[in-house]
Amino acid sequence: MPDDFDFSVPSLGEPNIQSPIKMSTVKGDSIANYVSDSERILFEIDAAAGDTRGPFKTEELLERAGPREKVYFNPAHVHAAVVTCGGLCPGLNNVVRAIVRCLWYSYGIKRITGIKNGYRGFLSESNFSTLELDPEYVDDIQARGGTVLGSARGGGDRVGEIADAIERLNINMLFTIGGDGTQRGALEIAEELERRALRVSVIGIPKTIDNDLSFIQRSFGFETAVEKAVDVVRGAHVEAHDTINGIGLVKVMGRESGFIAAYAALAMSDVNFCLIPESPFDLDGPNGLFESLRKRLLDRNHAVILVAEGAGQELVSETGETDLSGNKRLADIGVFLKEKIKAYFISIDMEVNIKYIDPSYIIRSSPANPNDSIYCSRLGAHAVHAAMAGKTKTLMSMVNNTFVHLPMRVAVSKRKHVNTEGSLWRDVVENTRQPVNMCDKGEKAHEKGMKQEGKK
Amino acid sequence: MPDDFDFSVPSLGEPNIQSPIKMSTVKGDSIANYVSDSERILFEIDAAAGDTRGPFKTEELLERAGPREKVYFNPAHVHAAVVTCGGLCPGLNNVVRAIVRCLWYSYGIKRITGIKNGYRGFLSESNFSTLELDPEYVDDIQARGGTVLGSARGGGDRVGEIADAIERLNINMLFTIGGDGTQRGALEIAEELERRALRVSVIGIPKTIDNDLSFIQRSFGFETAVEKAVDVVRGAHVEAHDTINGIGLVKVMGRESGFIAAYAALAMSDVNFCLIPESPFDLDGPNGLFESLRKRLLDRNHAVILVAEGAGQELVSETGETDLSGNKRLADIGVFLKEKIKAYFISIDMEVNIKYIDPSYIIRSSPANPNDSIYCSRLGAHAVHAAMAGKTKTLMSMVNNTFVHLPMRVAVSKRKHVNTEGSLWRDVVENTRQPVNMCDKGEKAHEKGMKQEGKK
Amino acid sequence: MPDDFDFSVPSLGEPNIQSPIKMSTVKGDSIANYVSDSERILFEIDAAAGDTRGPFKTEELLERAGPREKVYFNPAHVHAAVVTCGGLCPGLNNVVRAIVRCLWYSYGIKRITGIKNGYRGFLSESNFSTLELDPEYVDDIQARGGTVLGSARGGGDRVGEIADAIERLNINMLFTIGGDGTQRGALEIAEELERRALRVSVIGIPKTIDNDLSFIQRSFGFETAVEKAVDVVRGAHVEAHDTINGIGLVKVMGRESGFIAAYAALAMSDVNFCLIPESPFDLDGPNGLFESLRKRLLDRNHAVILVAEGAGQELVSETGETDLSGNKRLADIGVFLKEKIKAYFISIDMEVNIKYIDPSYIIRSSPANPNDSIYCSRLGAHAVHAAMAGKTKTLMSMVNNTFVHLPMRVAVSKRKHVNTEGSLWRDVVENTRQPVNMCDKGEKAHEKGMKQEGKK
Amino acid sequence: MPDDFDFSVPSLGEPNIQSPIKMSTVKGDSIANYVSDSERILFEIDAAAGDTRGPFKTEELLERAGPREKVYFNPAHVHAAVVTCGGLCPGLNNVVRAIVRCLWYSYGIKRITGIKNGYRGFLSESNFSTLELDPEYVDDIQARGGTVLGSARGGGDRVGEIADAIERLNINMLFTIGGDGTQRGALEIAEELERRALRVSVIGIPKTIDNDLSFIQRSFGFETAVEKAVDVVRGAHVEAHDTINGIGLVKVMGRESGFIAAYAALAMSDVNFCLIPESPFDLDGPNGLFESLRKRLLDRNHAVILVAEGAGQELVSETGETDLSGNKRLADIGVFLKEKIKAYFISIDMEVNIKYIDPSYIIRSSPANPNDSIYCSRLGAHAVHAAMAGKTKTLMSMVNNTFVHLPMRVAVSKRKHVNTEGSLWRDVVENTRQPVNMCDKGEKAHEKGMKQEGKK
Repeated sequence: MPDDFDFSVPSLGEPNIQSPIKMSTVKGDSIANYVSDSERILFEIDAAAGDTRGPFKTEELLERAGPREKVYFNPAHVHAAVVTCGGLCPGLNNVVRAIVRCLWYSYGIKRITGIKNGYRGFLSESNFSTLELDPEYVDDIQARGGTVLGSARGGGDRVGEIADAIERLNINMLFTIGGDGTQRGALEIAEELERRALRVSVIGIPKTIDNDLSFIQRSFGFETAVEKAVDVVRGAHVEAHDTINGIGLVKVMGRESGFIAAYAALAMSDVNFCLIPESPFDLDGPNGLFESLRKRLLDRNHAVILVAEGAGQELVSETGETDLSGNKRLADIGVFLKEKIKAYFISIDMEVNIKYIDPSYIIRSSPANPNDSIYCSRLGAHAVHAAMAGKTKTLMSMVNNTFVHLPMRVAVSKRKHVNTEGSLWRDVVENTRQPVNMCDKGEKAHEKGMKQEGKK
Repeated sequence: MPDDFDFSVPSLGEPNIQSPIKMSTVKGDSIANYVSDSERILFEIDAAAGDTRGPFKTEELLERAGPREKVYFNPAHVHAAVVTCGGLCPGLNNVVRAIVRCLWYSYGIKRITGIKNGYRGFLSESNFSTLELDPEYVDDIQARGGTVLGSARGGGDRVGEIADAIERLNINMLFTIGGDGTQRGALEIAEELERRALRVSVIGIPKTIDNDLSFIQRSFGFETAVEKAVDVVRGAHVEAHDTINGIGLVKVMGRESGFIAAYAALAMSDVNFCLIPESPFDLDGPNGLFESLRKRLLDRNHAVILVAEGAGQELVSETGETDLSGNKRLADIGVFLKEKIKAYFISIDMEVNIKYIDPSYIIRSSPANPNDSIYCSRLGAHAVHAAMAGKTKTLMSMVNNTFVHLPMRVAVSKRKHVNTEGSLWRDVVENTRQPVNMCDKGEKAHEKGMKQEGKK
Repeated sequence: MPDDFDFSVPSLGEPNIQSPIKMSTVKGDSIANYVSDSERILFEIDAAAGDTRGPFKTEELLERAGPREKVYFNPAHVHAAVVTCGGLCPGLNNVVRAIVRCLWYSYGIKRITGIKNGYRGFLSESNFSTLELDPEYVDDIQARGGTVLGSARGGGDRVGEIADAIERLNINMLFTIGGDGTQRGALEIAEELERRALRVSVIGIPKTIDNDLSFIQRSFGFETAVEKAVDVVRGAHVEAHDTINGIGLVKVMGRESGFIAAYAALAMSDVNFCLIPESPFDLDGPNGLFESLRKRLLDRNHAVILVAEGAGQELVSETGETDLSGNKRLADIGVFLKEKIKAYFISIDMEVNIKYIDPSYIIRSSPANPNDSIYCSRLGAHAVHAAMAGKTKTLMSMVNNTFVHLPMRVAVSKRKHVNTEGSLWRDVVENTRQPVNMCDKGEKAHEKGMKQEGKK
Repeated sequence: MPDDFDFSVPSLGEPNIQSPIKMSTVKGDSIANYVSDSERILFEIDAAAGDTRGPFKTEELLERAGPREKVYFNPAHVHAAVVTCGGLCPGLNNVVRAIVRCLWYSYGIKRITGIKNGYRGFLSESNFSTLELDPEYVDDIQARGGTVLGSARGGGDRVGEIADAIERLNINMLFTIGGDGTQRGALEIAEELERRALRVSVIGIPKTIDNDLSFIQRSFGFETAVEKAVDVVRGAHVEAHDTINGIGLVKVMGRESGFIAAYAALAMSDVNFCLIPESPFDLDGPNGLFESLRKRLLDRNHAVILVAEGAGQELVSETGETDLSGNKRLADIGVFLKEKIKAYFISIDMEVNIKYIDPSYIIRSSPANPNDSIYCSRLGAHAVHAAMAGKTKTLMSMVNNTFVHLPMRVAVSKRKHVNTEGSLWRDVVENTRQPVNMCDKGEKAHEKGMKQEGKK
């Protein structure tokens, strides 16, 4: 962690209105307490005997989230808006629902607008109607996947127009649920609104099914994604196992970080090769995929390969394209591997039966499982508390199992990667029993600069 | 946390055999590394600006778990045994399987014995055969709930006989999977073996479906239990909602701590009253259950009550009995509430339709969900690494999302409770919108001494 | 089957309005055809070589359901109502949804009223509002169990008041979803409406989670109920298997017929004793439950008992009570067996661990599984077609895998039972390997008069 | 149904050994009865008033399956073998397990051999070992999908070598679990064995996930396949619904018959276009897919297309290839449609977001759901009863909800199709509200000769 981290949370101003939520200010009365801005936690938990830490500066510590005794907004004046951006992810509806319920029931806020189809819903050309949200509308939405608001990529760069729409709609509280692109957009929108001297709280709820955002221990929907991936891997294992030299090949999400693949590989020990962006691999050579696969088949007659979509990009030719969110379009490593493996085994005249599964849309569109539901439910409520307290340009995050406020500025630019020297990847390699290094040429560490392992 | 905590991990002696696991000792080569005893983490993450921490004494810090470069046991000489004790819990088979697979594949240990039906399997009177465990035997056991070893309460106090059996069987590595009673037994067994100068590593994997052990962030099977409880609550909600003044009443596990009930209440917002041991409640009086329930029915025509088995024990007469594990037998709060609520509404001549569900055995016997499977898989492997390194009288634990070694001595005597002034319970109260204090008489804090909230 | 069966379907009059549904009247053009009243099927499929059947009278044959070319009602004049009665059952919402969608989309009917909480919703004293139903309202209701209309027992005997309400609301099409009591009520209501010269089509969709209605091959929700019961039996098996002399005891629905228990016993071979109302059993004696259980435990150390709620009622004392639907309240055979078995093994000084599970409310409140959803979807649409064609006093049924119209008169008085000499029970006895006759005294056939085995 | 059907069941000879299964021969004693060869049922249930049927010839009626009082084989002399062929299908393991359990427990047969990887397991070149099967081996296999025996395509034409292997292994009872190719092979093998004067009972259990075999009401695994398809369709609906002009495109199995697609379309009303082989469609033209899709998007902004793999083959160029089972390799209609639809909407400059899902391997490898498990369990046992009674060249089938013996000869050559003029397809068209005829040019019926609708 660089020394220059600054976890100070931007604010619209001094909150001085008594919160309508009834809680205790007394410790020891067995009644739930308000949280104060001074309650903070450490980010870094590693320590060695003899070490000294501190004296801590305020900005080195992370601010606990939760309901404040004093709020910035008068609930009667609040017009809140919620927008969901980018691809689908399990839990979107749970977060939307939690925001609406907390606004409505805890703060008595009745003007809640859903913006349709991401940032594009703000653009007048899109001509989408908005949704009036209330507890009845969101009552059972968590039972289905996706987002009732609709979601789409793009539009986040048209900051002026979005600010115009916010101004026109008299929105003073905006919840942006989306990935790093979305939150970068949110930051720019908030800054534009500041320039216009509008008092709008912009609170982001980070959404990344890949769980690859820095300073964010757990992104909602990730556990559900892993769970669904495990089911599919099970099927691939069955397909591979129950025929002659069967190879099950499954591609899962993971553009730049292989967390879904790594966790899914640990659930059942069905995976024999887990391929992630952080750990380059060769196809040829003595530790390459082909030879390792050949040995595995000779030994056990079946094999399962789990590949993250961003793995092995150095092997396939660049597409050079980007999607509407500006993400580089990846070449399809799954189809690539299927063809290459097939060709390899034809070339050595060995019968194999390869079954390729790409469950991405199935995973993305699943409803959140109960544990993600719980997490989303708390995340959404904490976002509302943050907005009511006047925080802005802030993401809701969990760090060291604690809900915290994370300034957008520090989070949007850094990615979390699987640390190939850490505990998670070690456990994966042990479990799959794949070669510790499948990249012969790459005896030197590869250059992708992954520093920080996801905590879990 | 008292100052006198001592996290030093007992050991059988100096490990000086090269581990058969091939890993790296170099940081920066992108290859998974061994873990050293000096890699430690903080327990306490709360901090305030201006605070100073340290210099840390070794015993104040928690030792990271993981494979060591040097091991204590020669794999060729190891005879490992595994025992599962107490009631069923999702994930038992996953842990057993992970232990067997790690012993076999990572260390090449082929003598692995399963003890049947808990500690009673060691007693000669029981006359149970033992099981020879290998990867084939455990291949698919995680797909079913329960434990292939069988489990039973009791026997843990017959320390001498158990030590005799361990000696007779030449076991030098014992994995005890069980609750606090089991681990107290394990500690006594380990001490008896020490007195006999036997070099036996005793490693505990804490099992508590209630998630109520101190210093243990997450006990395996807990998330699955919550997930199953959520399903049942959903059914109770439907039963309550879809008739005239329906009341769904669900009892879940939670003898002394209400974590399952608290988390389950957060998943769907179906729960209107969450009753846990840590937060006493009255039946009568203006904030008591009856009046609150009456108001809720008048307002919304249905209500769901989720009660932990240990809640409201002060309301029901003591049974005075204990089970074979020495746990006090609780009076059945579920049946008690069902009868009392029924009688109350008859007394005020109001029609209600109460549906009582006790899903305990359904929950306990479930297979672990994928996320628990992943956790169990890592937990079991880390237990093996600890044993191989010569650790003993040690529990495997997760603290601040890190696998650590926890001396049995500090863990077995303390329980984790839901902190009624903390974040979890605050979120529950907000979500259920139940009275913050349902105990009129109890304006003073009740005396159960719950200090430490579960981290999650 | 008695010879005097008469399957003629009552009708409000001649349909002579062209259906708004566009279908073909030509066979062979590959386009879906209307169904005519003359398309009929046989009920009885058993036949022996040399037999002759026919010439068939019209009333001996069952009329195929489906859309007619000519309808009785002008869609513009229709006001349809839907009511759900009695206990919950998986699929209620699917049937309601299918009725609403077929009325709306296929016939263009826009006045659709949901009656709340069963027949009691018609009574002015109840003071329940009605629901306006449209495709948006029912859009996702099938994702949850229960019924959005609410359901309750009772009220069906107040025929005059219900007819008053129907008259007052100008309803001319009533869909009654409920069990035999509900349909008896529906028949009386229809007759009362006839006496008042009101042209109201009354169409029943039989609901019996026990699958115990005569002439009805499959009742909706039954397969889901079996599926859920199988899950619970699996848990009971794990609880029984994984301890010392474990006994899993599961009670499922089945007041007078043991279909759920019988089918559930066949899924996994986990059940060792399947106890149903149709097959009496003794507790004592050489083939009685106690001795059979003792032998099983000596042989295999665990046992699973699956008991239908109506089984063994001759063993327990009558409660003498009835519920609001007029059903005799059964004594609780599950709790009775648990206590008796416990006492028996104490008396012979043999350790057993008995785990009792009553999953009834969990099963009832489940959403329909996909196959039941498909069935409900078709059932509801066929009910609408029947009503539009002017049929009345008619139930929707499936016979020999064909949707048919079944006059209420022939169906409401007879129950379907498990034929203890037929294929289903034979397979159960083979699978459980329980004694073919567990009733020593009862060498003579018991007198419950079960004639007709469920077809499946 | 042609008049010349002959349902006579081939037999190895007169059974004259008393069955070891204890059942009753007396009707009316409430004890399960043996089945006799004279118990028969009708195939055809359609009837019109005035019709006469019969006198029935024996061969016109279907023989009920079930345990016979007299068996042909002395259990002590039986060596049974089981083989699973072709692609995976839910329920394979359940059928294998049921066969093994019935042989072992009901008849006391202890020599049961599993042949590996389909017919190729008989070929000496394959060099696969065989498996010894017993109840312990098959204990929990139904919990996983696939087949423990392994399965593969091909080999079935090498009749002489297979007969040699059967002779060499002294097998006198062969259970062939597979599709029409497999059963054609089984018939030829049985005939070759007859020529060699070997007394081998060959009993087929038809496996077709597409449910497309004639005279077979329900093929095992089909309901599970539908259930899994419904899940995926739900996901596709969410993906389509929750974005701008989303199109969810799902391809499911169904080479020549669209039953999976048709049933899956009925579960949730999520499907807007159900495309099956039996109902040709155009891409262009006023009722073609493109224009229909365009209208749907303008109206509702999202659409779901469910396409059976064999649909629209006339639109794509033939591949000209066949697989090892001799099935014609189909061009991939899913990928074809995805590309064509994308191109079409680009050509008319309309933004759409198309998400294509191919869940085939996920569906095939699933474990059977409880209702399929029950069916498989009964199917396997009935196959054993047939073999023990000396039946041969016979398939196990269900007709009119009754387990029957079906001579292989009549079944293997005919396929069941969705009758586009019948009840199932009518319900699909009503539900999807797709044009009743999407094929403008094809006003005349298309020539695929689909005669018989699946009964369900």
